[in-house]
Amino acid sequence: MTIYDWPTGPYPARVRIALAEKNLRSHVRFVTVDLWKGEHKTADFRAKNYSGTLPVLELDDGTFIAECTAITEYLDTLAGPPVLTGRTPREKGVIHMMSKRAEIELLDAVSVYFHHATPGLGPAVEIYQNPEWGLRQRDKAIRGMHYFDAVLKKQPFAAGEAFSMADITIIGGLIFAALVDLPIPAECTALQAWYARMQARPSVRDQLAMTIPAR
Amino acid sequence: MTIYDWPTGPYPARVRIALAEKNLRSHVRFVTVDLWKGEHKTADFRAKNYSGTLPVLELDDGTFIAECTAITEYLDTLAGPPVLTGRTPREKGVIHMMSKRAEIELLDAVSVYFHHATPGLGPAVEIYQNPEWGLRQRDKAIRGMHYFDAVLKKQPFAAGEAFSMADITIIGGLIFAALVDLPIPAECTALQAWYARMQARPSVRDQLAMTIPAR
Ligand SMILES: N[C@@H](CCC(=O)N[C@@H](CS)C(=O)NCC(=O)O)C(=O)O
Ligand SMILES: N[C@@H](CCC(=O)N[C@@H](CS)C(=O)NCC(=O)O)C(=O)O
Repeated sequence: MTIYDWPTGPYPARVRIALAEKNLRSHVRFVTVDLWKGEHKTADFRAKNYSGTLPVLELDDGTFIAECTAITEYLDTLAGPPVLTGRTPREKGVIHMMSKRAEIELLDAVSVYFHHATPGLGPAVEIYQNPEWGLRQRDKAIRGMHYFDAVLKKQPFAAGEAFSMADITIIGGLIFAALVDLPIPAECTALQAWYARMQARPSVRDQLAMTIPAR
Repeated sequence: MTIYDWPTGPYPARVRIALAEKNLRSHVRFVTVDLWKGEHKTADFRAKNYSGTLPVLELDDGTFIAECTAITEYLDTLAGPPVLTGRTPREKGVIHMMSKRAEIELLDAVSVYFHHATPGLGPAVEIYQNPEWGLRQRDKAIRGMHYFDAVLKKQPFAAGEAFSMADITIIGGLIFAALVDLPIPAECTALQAWYARMQARPSVRDQLAMTIPAR
């Protein structure tokens, strides 16, 4: 398998964490696509992923699978435990929902803030920006942190009693948030405590060492 | 099971089509939430779904599952064929990706256009609008139609050789597009032909009779 990747990107980080959890890293060849140079917006790359985003998984038969959640579902059903996307219909539904909610209410909102209300990837790549929309999404992401804090006051993981893809998506959101100086609010103590526990997992610790440069 | 629903909404239509395909309609009680009155933005409803959108599935044990794709995955793993979310890891990954792409590049883009660059659900519900962003999303949705047209020139269904959740998501997008007067461009002949085939399926035909008022 090949993964088109940006080594320090918050979205690719999700797939790297999933690969580490599933013990599949050694099966993957990583090919870097330079976001800062806009290599993900070329016709060549968009033939792999129409949406022009990373990561993209290429299977040995030439199939391209984009979207972190789709890649994670592929990897999860390919290999043995731990199960990241659920076993029963109820687990699958709840994990899928919580992961999507973590994208909508946190990670994707931080991404829109970055691309629209900060210099983002620079003027050559960010050819259209809507700062007002970007700032709205930043505020939505902060509200999202409070929402997940409330969830984690009641249960140990984002989707209930076990670590899952939904936790990985929130981690992606917090990695991106840290990169754009949106720290977890001090009053979100359950989210803070959960994140400290997540960082103790080898899959997450190794990834964080890579994405957030030590200061 | 209970579904909180808006009978003519393009998103709930996706779940109704999935229910019909899985022959599960008779197992579900539908409760209408009035979008035009903003009932989906109340604290009571947001306790069911933080994102304040329809549909939401409530299981008999009191679990709430929001997000059309999560609900569809729940229903699909609960009941027998036809399989809507894939059998093999590759099928699951590709269907998941194509469904997400149909949201990002078509359905969700049409939704943002509706809520931001048209009167949407009216001034009492649409308390913040960003028309410039809405118009950008409209243009993105039209480009998305061209993309899916190109896909459907090469294969009979959105994710390959079989009907799947990805087709249902595009159908949701085209239902919404029709409601806001964004017809399929005439040159998108493969998308047109595919949509005519989709409308011949009883699950889709019955739903369309409900969502698009005859003129
Ligand atoms: N919905 C996609 C989003 C991926 C995404 O936005 N990736 C970032 C890299 S961290 C990217 O490609 N950004 C470039 C851009 O949006 O211009 C997913 O979940 O995989
Ligand atoms: N991401 C959600 C979106 C659902 C959605 O936007 N539903 C519409 C009903 S057709 C809605 O609730 N709109 C009200 C609003 O956004 O204010 C899903 O896929 O289920």
